[in-house]
Amino acid sequence: MSDKNLIKYAQKLKEIQPFHVMDFLAQAQSLERQGHSIIHLEVGEPDFATPIKIVRAGRKALHENKTQYTAAAGLPELKQAISRFYLTRHLKEINPDSIMITPGASGALLLCLSALLDPGDKVLMMDPGYPCNKNIVTMLGGKPVLVPVSAESNFLPSIEALNNVWDEKVKALLVASPSNPTGSVIDSDLMAKLVDFSEQRNIALIVDEIYMGLTYDDESNAAIQTAANTSDHCFVINSFSKYFCMTGWRLGWIVAPESAIKSLDKVAQNIFLAAPTTAQYAALSAFDAIVIKELEKRREEFKRRRDYLYPAIENLGFIMDKKPEGAFYLYADCSNFTTDSYKLTHDLLYKAGVAVTPGVDFGTYKSNTHIRFAYTRDLNQLKQAVQRLQQYFTHYDEQA
Amino acid sequence: MSDKNLIKYAQKLKEIQPFHVMDFLAQAQSLERQGHSIIHLEVGEPDFATPIKIVRAGRKALHENKTQYTAAAGLPELKQAISRFYLTRHLKEINPDSIMITPGASGALLLCLSALLDPGDKVLMMDPGYPCNKNIVTMLGGKPVLVPVSAESNFLPSIEALNNVWDEKVKALLVASPSNPTGSVIDSDLMAKLVDFSEQRNIALIVDEIYMGLTYDDESNAAIQTAANTSDHCFVINSFSKYFCMTGWRLGWIVAPESAIKSLDKVAQNIFLAAPTTAQYAALSAFDAIVIKELEKRREEFKRRRDYLYPAIENLGFIMDKKPEGAFYLYADCSNFTTDSYKLTHDLLYKAGVAVTPGVDFGTYKSNTHIRFAYTRDLNQLKQAVQRLQQYFTHYDEQA
Repeated sequence: MSDKNLIKYAQKLKEIQPFHVMDFLAQAQSLERQGHSIIHLEVGEPDFATPIKIVRAGRKALHENKTQYTAAAGLPELKQAISRFYLTRHLKEINPDSIMITPGASGALLLCLSALLDPGDKVLMMDPGYPCNKNIVTMLGGKPVLVPVSAESNFLPSIEALNNVWDEKVKALLVASPSNPTGSVIDSDLMAKLVDFSEQRNIALIVDEIYMGLTYDDESNAAIQTAANTSDHCFVINSFSKYFCMTGWRLGWIVAPESAIKSLDKVAQNIFLAAPTTAQYAALSAFDAIVIKELEKRREEFKRRRDYLYPAIENLGFIMDKKPEGAFYLYADCSNFTTDSYKLTHDLLYKAGVAVTPGVDFGTYKSNTHIRFAYTRDLNQLKQAVQRLQQYFTHYDEQA
Repeated sequence: MSDKNLIKYAQKLKEIQPFHVMDFLAQAQSLERQGHSIIHLEVGEPDFATPIKIVRAGRKALHENKTQYTAAAGLPELKQAISRFYLTRHLKEINPDSIMITPGASGALLLCLSALLDPGDKVLMMDPGYPCNKNIVTMLGGKPVLVPVSAESNFLPSIEALNNVWDEKVKALLVASPSNPTGSVIDSDLMAKLVDFSEQRNIALIVDEIYMGLTYDDESNAAIQTAANTSDHCFVINSFSKYFCMTGWRLGWIVAPESAIKSLDKVAQNIFLAAPTTAQYAALSAFDAIVIKELEKRREEFKRRRDYLYPAIENLGFIMDKKPEGAFYLYADCSNFTTDSYKLTHDLLYKAGVAVTPGVDFGTYKSNTHIRFAYTRDLNQLKQAVQRLQQYFTHYDEQA
């Protein structure tokens, strides 16, 4: 009956690379099963559990059978709680009705881009950057335009560079602060310029703030900085995953221009219906003083880790231009050792027992001479990792 | 600095209608706040709580801090549990590795279509049908091709009708069994023809089985029927929302051809990372004998509701051709009363206190002469609704 040819998958899938970090994670786990000791500095997930008060709120919601759909835009109480958080912590007034609750920041990004892009439309974004950004644009039939950024500019874009790649098909500029994989923070001067650029060009400015709260310097300023509500062109994406340590709950949010909410709501109904209900009730406790106190302790711990790891890997021979201000990553230049960072990543795993992420996961610009360290393991493990790396690089010439 | 023009949203948004049922739900709730009594027959969500054993498993997972990301394809134990369920209940061997766990059936549908469609590609689907189907295709830059089906063919497609609309841009055929809004079930003869059509045309056959388990007749046959694993062209979409009463948990799955899993995994990593972790652990208890026993009782209750409501609305003057075999909907022809079912829906809400869904939410074909009743309220409420409708239609001529 059938000629058993294969069905045709989308052509665009060819442009989408799987994350190499997932391969390395699988290889690392396989080595562990064989009895090898591996230190995991590849994983972009906090090693801290969800704060107990949030967990308890989730259990209580389940006990009370709060398991039905919420509105597509999310629980009104949660939108109000987020709005209060912006007011008390960031000194910003945000109308709860301009907030959309989403299944993670992935859902938030997909929602914004779905509402903005027709096939062929372009989005400006940084290289290196979070790999899903370009893939989601491709998935929607759009074209990611990668703007190379390097350590010399703290991995941040210049308006000149943006103007150079701009054309009429560009519908959005996507930036992150603090950024994955570089940890760079966009200061208020640059953010004002990016807002201005977006308004003049009449494009959307999407600011990924999912590492908000995880900044370690100049706390009076950077810690309270947010692009939320700075412009009617600005969409801010955030998440409970990183600062609030709620990864598996799959919960994020968008602060959108009020004019966008009706469109976002319509798209949300279709692509995900609503964010998980238990997670939304649990997150109502995320802003409690006792939870924030615990999270601030964790932030201090992340700062200690960064302050240990940064000079340590510089001493090993990695070229580090500037200590990153936020997130929990160091994007390290390994050109002193190799121009094949993928092979180096492989060697570090198999010969040193240290798992990291190769630069190629974050783009193409200088990615062959960079690897990413995530400091999502405790200080003891970081010290042990540095010892292993030291031993590995001592004998590097013989190995290479 | 800025000329304050508005940003441009996607053109395709114009083709996407919000669900009118959401408007009617909001209006119904507003009437209730004003003290009016409304019977909700518009909501496509079971009125039963999640079975207690599943809830307890979710609470236990939280207590044990199982709150981190799972693999994008889902918890291996859950894929095994689903595979065992197909074997014991449906007598089908499904390789756990051909199952992907998704955030709801919305996530499942988005994932399949993302992997299959490039901009301009077409998907064949039924009109009337679940409204998100066409909207997700549009969102991805594709073109939904609506195939009109009516009561004469039990709202099911003929191969002739599919051949008539087929062209080289078609990449997938999407059908549902049992179907929303019609409750129709595709029997094994028709399914074999649809499989054959898809294989000969080398397109994907996507079968939405999210109402699987909710069938009420010929139980020895229809209840165990599934398209899972019938063809290497077939993608089956399912969900824990309806039969398992887990709507707000946001959990579904796909049974895909093994050749598709690598692509689906890659896309899943980008668009949603993973399904909610607590929900996945909770669902491990969904197949326990005691849970299934409870769910089968609920199925009997749905059957009683259908068997009451079907003749009751026929008596009211709605034209009903065949009692639907499954889901929890009656798609009723109201052409005896009106050719404006949207206005009728409005009137039933405001003048009779009964909320239903207008046909326009499900397509364009004969939608002006249909409304959908959901029997997601108990028998007492259904009887009360029928009384109200009786009273309303008794005076219908004066009202119209």
